[in-house]
Amino acid sequence: MLSRLKNTVIGSPLPTQQLAENRLNKIRALAAFSPDALSSIAYANQEIYLGLVVAGAAGLVLAWPIGLVIVGVLVIVAISYYQTIHGYPSGGGSYIVARANIGTLPGLIAAGALLLDYLLCAAVSLTAGVDAIASAFPNLWPYKTIIALGLLGLIMLANLRGLRETGTFMAVPVYLFLFTYIPMLIYGAIHLWMEGPTPMVTVAPPPVQPLSLFLIMHTFATGCTALTGIEAISNGVPAFKQPESKNAGRTLIVMAILMGILFVGSIGLTQFLGVIAGPQETILSALARHLLGSGPAYVLIQLSTLLILAVAANTSFADFPRLSAILARDGFLPRQFTGLGDRLVFTNGIVFLTIAAGVLIVIFRGNSHLLIPLFAIGAFLAFTLSQAGMVIHWFRERTQNWRLKAFLNGLGAFATATTLLIITISKFREGAWITVLLIPIFVFVFLRIHQHYIDVGKQLSLRGLPPDLKPTPPMRLVVPVSGIHRGIVDAMDFAQSISKDITALYIELDPGTGEELSKEWECWWPDIPLVVLPSPYRSIIRPLLDYLDEDDRKHNDGTLAAVVLPEFIPAKWWQQLLHNQTSLLIKTALLYRRRTLGFQRIIIDVPYHLKK
Amino acid sequence: MLSRLKNTVIGSPLPTQQLAENRLNKIRALAAFSPDALSSIAYANQEIYLGLVVAGAAGLVLAWPIGLVIVGVLVIVAISYYQTIHGYPSGGGSYIVARANIGTLPGLIAAGALLLDYLLCAAVSLTAGVDAIASAFPNLWPYKTIIALGLLGLIMLANLRGLRETGTFMAVPVYLFLFTYIPMLIYGAIHLWMEGPTPMVTVAPPPVQPLSLFLIMHTFATGCTALTGIEAISNGVPAFKQPESKNAGRTLIVMAILMGILFVGSIGLTQFLGVIAGPQETILSALARHLLGSGPAYVLIQLSTLLILAVAANTSFADFPRLSAILARDGFLPRQFTGLGDRLVFTNGIVFLTIAAGVLIVIFRGNSHLLIPLFAIGAFLAFTLSQAGMVIHWFRERTQNWRLKAFLNGLGAFATATTLLIITISKFREGAWITVLLIPIFVFVFLRIHQHYIDVGKQLSLRGLPPDLKPTPPMRLVVPVSGIHRGIVDAMDFAQSISKDITALYIELDPGTGEELSKEWECWWPDIPLVVLPSPYRSIIRPLLDYLDEDDRKHNDGTLAAVVLPEFIPAKWWQQLLHNQTSLLIKTALLYRRRTLGFQRIIIDVPYHLKK
Repeated sequence: MLSRLKNTVIGSPLPTQQLAENRLNKIRALAAFSPDALSSIAYANQEIYLGLVVAGAAGLVLAWPIGLVIVGVLVIVAISYYQTIHGYPSGGGSYIVARANIGTLPGLIAAGALLLDYLLCAAVSLTAGVDAIASAFPNLWPYKTIIALGLLGLIMLANLRGLRETGTFMAVPVYLFLFTYIPMLIYGAIHLWMEGPTPMVTVAPPPVQPLSLFLIMHTFATGCTALTGIEAISNGVPAFKQPESKNAGRTLIVMAILMGILFVGSIGLTQFLGVIAGPQETILSALARHLLGSGPAYVLIQLSTLLILAVAANTSFADFPRLSAILARDGFLPRQFTGLGDRLVFTNGIVFLTIAAGVLIVIFRGNSHLLIPLFAIGAFLAFTLSQAGMVIHWFRERTQNWRLKAFLNGLGAFATATTLLIITISKFREGAWITVLLIPIFVFVFLRIHQHYIDVGKQLSLRGLPPDLKPTPPMRLVVPVSGIHRGIVDAMDFAQSISKDITALYIELDPGTGEELSKEWECWWPDIPLVVLPSPYRSIIRPLLDYLDEDDRKHNDGTLAAVVLPEFIPAKWWQQLLHNQTSLLIKTALLYRRRTLGFQRIIIDVPYHLKK
Repeated sequence: MLSRLKNTVIGSPLPTQQLAENRLNKIRALAAFSPDALSSIAYANQEIYLGLVVAGAAGLVLAWPIGLVIVGVLVIVAISYYQTIHGYPSGGGSYIVARANIGTLPGLIAAGALLLDYLLCAAVSLTAGVDAIASAFPNLWPYKTIIALGLLGLIMLANLRGLRETGTFMAVPVYLFLFTYIPMLIYGAIHLWMEGPTPMVTVAPPPVQPLSLFLIMHTFATGCTALTGIEAISNGVPAFKQPESKNAGRTLIVMAILMGILFVGSIGLTQFLGVIAGPQETILSALARHLLGSGPAYVLIQLSTLLILAVAANTSFADFPRLSAILARDGFLPRQFTGLGDRLVFTNGIVFLTIAAGVLIVIFRGNSHLLIPLFAIGAFLAFTLSQAGMVIHWFRERTQNWRLKAFLNGLGAFATATTLLIITISKFREGAWITVLLIPIFVFVFLRIHQHYIDVGKQLSLRGLPPDLKPTPPMRLVVPVSGIHRGIVDAMDFAQSISKDITALYIELDPGTGEELSKEWECWWPDIPLVVLPSPYRSIIRPLLDYLDEDDRKHNDGTLAAVVLPEFIPAKWWQQLLHNQTSLLIKTALLYRRRTLGFQRIIIDVPYHLKK
């Protein structure tokens, strides 16, 4: 029944051979990989506005120049990644590039940074999306956290169904966003051209802080969140239709151009039209309201902002599980992350991401402004490492035009490293320290896990062992019995068939019952000793474990110890509730115990089936 | 760590031999068994008041005569139970008496009725107690459900610690109640004698319903809840110090006299002093406020009412687990209810009662007035059956004065049967139907469980089997392997030591790996076939189960099937998270599977311990 419910919600299992078929064409790929990058303008604009408004009109007039600098960085980073896509057509992005070219440790740093960034991307995008719709419907403000969590759940389900269906599902909001926002920007530009700019001084609130260099740096840093997500395509090259690199590269160019238009367009219009946001409103909402009024066109814009931010979270759902799987395959994360689920998606990665993003949303009470300072550091750290790796890559490969390529990637590395430094310093106290602390912890965990897998591999290795092995030592069997009945008979038969050294064990809960049983035992199995263990505290497990431990210590002679557990299986599940589950308790205790003691104790479970 | 926490809260385990020492003297026994009966006046008074006030002054003047009739029933029932205590010194109450004298089915009906009644007693007492304190502090009204649940939790913990300590803990509130209430009643009586009665017509609200016979019967029925709990002592005779019957009988007499004084005293004073309750107040609170004002004396009265009602719930915690244990011992409830916990109490019964009472409190939103109609039916049904059983008992025994004794118990049976009829009819639509429906369901469940235990007993019985049994059939072993490594070597050694018929099984998740493994396998175990099962849907469990089922069907020749599971055990618990738990999944699937199929399939777990 559970499995039928799962099939309805997630879809029925797909065979492995269908894996290669789930490729994306460019239209779908743009929808699958660009939402994070495109939608970044929503929170980047908002952060630039919030950063500058405290300095009044003198601050707000800097929005446009800061925006242009960020677009400059965008161009450099986009060119860098275009080269990465062609250099590494098998995908994997920053982790693979940094690890292959600089070394394992930088690769792991990039991986940790990216994982954290994907996670934050999901949380920030969802909360910013809910901000957008709550700007249009202020009644929703108190429910922002709940709405964000609901959207998170929906996105998880869509992703558990698989990438192809997700692609279709996500394409609509992306194109809706583009086909509503770009016309609005064009309309705004015409408007501005016809009526001329509104000077900021006439509308800006009075300054509460002086305009300082730190404030400008800080605003630049928060505005750089506009670039997050640009690396998504380079990680996902193998999901494209063949020829993968060419298709991915073209999609990247289209995406970067769209990002630039949306970002400078909206930031420019906001400034030159003199738009100011109210207290429960985003600046993009204020711009749209300024241009379109509060009618259906405005609501459509806000709705499409919510939708693209929601699917931006989906970029994380495409990349986080994929990177986790790569790390797990290399032994830096638990193996479980490599497992393709029924629908050919990395189920564990998806579920893990959902839980972690949900926790972040709850802790930061659905407030994107509080989450932003943690964000972007990871992305820019990964950018820098990946770019630096590419420089080394070109030096090694020395293919056509390698000097130009190395220079372009070097420029990218320099630009992103500078940005990273500015972000870290200016946002450190507001939350960036959390990211700075977490990334080394992640790397430590990766290394610890890796060491464990190496240790296990060595211990399990058969190298040096001769194919012909030692003979099996004689076996000591212990059979815990609860009385004399059919279930016991089967277990004793089995025990006698594999060993001569058998001890039956009775835990005496009610004083006197042991003596009675011993007499009856004598008639049935005169050759097998029955040990009666008193249990003054009425526990079955404790005396049994103590006996076994004592017995193993006494027979420390290379014999093999095994416990035979007679267990009767009721015919119907509810009948299970009517029995004491002693056998299950013993099994659990033995499993736990043997880990703490390290004895090799074989557990043999002999069932006896009841008919009704 | 968990076990240390448990020891702090519950206390450390007690050995079985200490069982006999945990006996109660009369002072403590009165505290342990009387609170339900004594505190019943709180809600019984309240229900009589609420029942009559709708008919205005004409109704309210009937409170005193109705109270006197109820006291008449009280005397009859108390005498009846006094005889029961001496007739059945080993305790068990209505269930034992009815079962022994009338038959199993009436016994089970009494048992079901009592279990339900104990449960309702806990819920009603706690909610009525919270009513009492919320009458003094009206700010608490919105939190009544939460407060009731908190008290329920405290009582559970006290009971898990054990009866003796519970007795001490409970004695204080009981005597506090008696030593505040009785002086207040005396003070009220003097007051009344000095100043004369206030006629009800001068204070009563105008009638909203005519005074009908049904209304009087209905009020009598709800007032009879005053009698609930009177049977508690007869069920708990073995908890008294020796001589048990004599001590228990005297305690019963003292308790009945106290019940009568409290009940007629408070009901009489309420009527003759012309006391009327406000909307968020109980009638007893109104009486106390009338006599004492709203100062500390009044608050003390309300507090002691809360406390005795809270410990009244404790009567259920003494009786419910004990009756469950008796039923379980007789095979009518799951065996687990017979288990004495670490502290020599019936842990499962206590926990079960807590959960069920908590659910009732939540469903009825902490409102005792809504719970009352379900209540008392169980008690009076059990009274009637028990009394009728005693009549038969005396006819059988024919001891000294048996005719008189039979007459007294017969009178008790008649009185309680009449009351039961009145209660059922007059409260049927308000909720009594739930009780009427549940009792047969309980009896059905008891019988179903009993039948299961009989079936199991027959199937496990060795009667008719010769002590010398069939030889063990040859064994087919299947060893699922994940590759060739040390863990597999140990499992194969073991398998070869107990059988010649071994098949290794490899589930091929990645196409091609099976062929590779087969070649290597050839070098290590050339004599043992390795079956490679493709798994296009990447499931390990499904192909394995399908293979085993198919294999068992093919070899339907009486051979024994066993699965040998190689399992490696990491040295530290967190390392467990880094492995796929395949062996655990297989074990779980096999356990479930073998119940649905009914094959006898032995499961052998061969561990291999990792060192670090």
